[in-house]
Amino acid sequence: MTDHDPGNPVGAATTPRRYAVVGTGAVGGYYGARLAHAGHEVHFLARSDAEVLRRDGLRVESPDGDFSLPTPSVCTSPDELPPVDCVLVTVKTTAQEEAAAMVGPLGSPTTALVAMQNGLGVEAALAARAPAGTPVLGAMCFLCSNRVAPGHIRHVDYGRVTVGAWTPDESPGGITPEVVALAADLEGAGVPSVPIADLAEGRWRKLVWNIPYNGLSVVLDAATNELMGAAPTRMLVRGLMEEVVAGAAACGHPIDDGFVEVMLDTTDRMAPYATSMKLDHDHGRPMELDTIYGAPLAAARAAGAPMVRAEMLLAQLRFLDAR
Amino acid sequence: MTDHDPGNPVGAATTPRRYAVVGTGAVGGYYGARLAHAGHEVHFLARSDAEVLRRDGLRVESPDGDFSLPTPSVCTSPDELPPVDCVLVTVKTTAQEEAAAMVGPLGSPTTALVAMQNGLGVEAALAARAPAGTPVLGAMCFLCSNRVAPGHIRHVDYGRVTVGAWTPDESPGGITPEVVALAADLEGAGVPSVPIADLAEGRWRKLVWNIPYNGLSVVLDAATNELMGAAPTRMLVRGLMEEVVAGAAACGHPIDDGFVEVMLDTTDRMAPYATSMKLDHDHGRPMELDTIYGAPLAAARAAGAPMVRAEMLLAQLRFLDAR
Repeated sequence: MTDHDPGNPVGAATTPRRYAVVGTGAVGGYYGARLAHAGHEVHFLARSDAEVLRRDGLRVESPDGDFSLPTPSVCTSPDELPPVDCVLVTVKTTAQEEAAAMVGPLGSPTTALVAMQNGLGVEAALAARAPAGTPVLGAMCFLCSNRVAPGHIRHVDYGRVTVGAWTPDESPGGITPEVVALAADLEGAGVPSVPIADLAEGRWRKLVWNIPYNGLSVVLDAATNELMGAAPTRMLVRGLMEEVVAGAAACGHPIDDGFVEVMLDTTDRMAPYATSMKLDHDHGRPMELDTIYGAPLAAARAAGAPMVRAEMLLAQLRFLDAR
Repeated sequence: MTDHDPGNPVGAATTPRRYAVVGTGAVGGYYGARLAHAGHEVHFLARSDAEVLRRDGLRVESPDGDFSLPTPSVCTSPDELPPVDCVLVTVKTTAQEEAAAMVGPLGSPTTALVAMQNGLGVEAALAARAPAGTPVLGAMCFLCSNRVAPGHIRHVDYGRVTVGAWTPDESPGGITPEVVALAADLEGAGVPSVPIADLAEGRWRKLVWNIPYNGLSVVLDAATNELMGAAPTRMLVRGLMEEVVAGAAACGHPIDDGFVEVMLDTTDRMAPYATSMKLDHDHGRPMELDTIYGAPLAAARAAGAPMVRAEMLLAQLRFLDAR
């Protein structure tokens, strides 16, 4: 589906580095395997999947070519990890404080922490638990993949990653050496990768998509194409997107006018898509409500631009999540 | 459950009058049977239920005492009806124009038409098809009952009816003779009945309850007590109620400040309740979206007070209704 074959990676474009990947699900399993397959030293911090990974390895099915890691390095405690250059945090944000407490201490001036996660506030949670001087990054994944079973990842489509540097005041962090290194390693491993100077703006841009589709797909039990195919929900999606754009602007992260149209158009051209939040809810897992909704809605309200529709959607989601 | 026994009606408090009841479901079957049981001449205009009604009669189970009409008068066409004093229109509003076209011509200066139905605009639809000089009334039912089968009504709880006179400009119609007569007949038949001078205000007051609970019970698949028992939805219900109050005020029908609290408190004390809209949707019937949502939302928006949350709820409901 793409014009390169990551099964024979373009990679070795960068010097091999050392990675820890926290979480071996659809995100961590996929990107970690790509980095390892490209020659980087990757250590997976796993929990329930550890035994299977050690016994059977990590297998990735992908339209770009299947591959597997027969003997991945697997730890079950942060204490077992060797020093690494970069820690990719890929666990769900439903227990982000606990994750940060576990992973934060791995950071150092020479070990970057990367929140490869959804929503707002995820980097700040890591930074709050990390030693002073730790570079903290955020990475946004436009990936459609599933963890079919422990150690078995099915990459369905897409995979692009946007990488930016976090700053305590949410000002643009610029293209730092850590951002460049991660983006280059991913690109070299066959993962399209985009460094961005303004992480907070990037996070808000991603919310323009996530806030309408994640929540409505759960509340209305519908895929993206169904929401786009009916006039009332299509108008509602647009209204929610416009609220996010207004919220972002009020929080100091203006997004250009045409972005809503681009998002609608992009979604129209996507294959029918069940959002990650819908998959979580359908499988009885908690939804990432605090980071995808709670944090941005609180920020927008505090900045004088309450997102009334999104707040209503969050109320509906919290009701369904609790039940 | 009440301190009178309508099985031995307090009735005959009024001179018997002649009624036509359009629709023999949970509303028409119940109130029509009560009026007939109290000695009024009641003709039921039925469709699919006509045959069973003629053969087996109309049976009402009620906590106030069961009773039945062994040989109700049943018509299947308006042409078969004798002249009556009052036509109670109790059909669902999902095809209100068609219903009005059929029933409107029954009106005359001596035959009142009563929209015993939900939402806004229901009387205007009848009036538009009625001869000049026809008294048009609205009646709001606070009733929990079900049509268990053709000719078999189960009255579960409540039953109070509010009656007011419609006017073309929505100004208070006052307590007209027709309003007094209907309220008295209902009261005499064991149905608590309240004449009101301002029908439009009454309609908006009822929407304060209907707009949050009807829609949310469908979208979230929940009974009233579940919606009230969770903090996020309880706050959302309040937000929706406050929107309706603001919409009513903008449309010239101010509602007193404390009404929202009264509605919340009343609902807290109600038994768990599946709304009529939820019952309709669960049984695959169309929902009364145009009169309960469409008309009031359009009126509020035109008056400069858009009900953003309620509009979002309507979009969700239209999506589910179409599916």
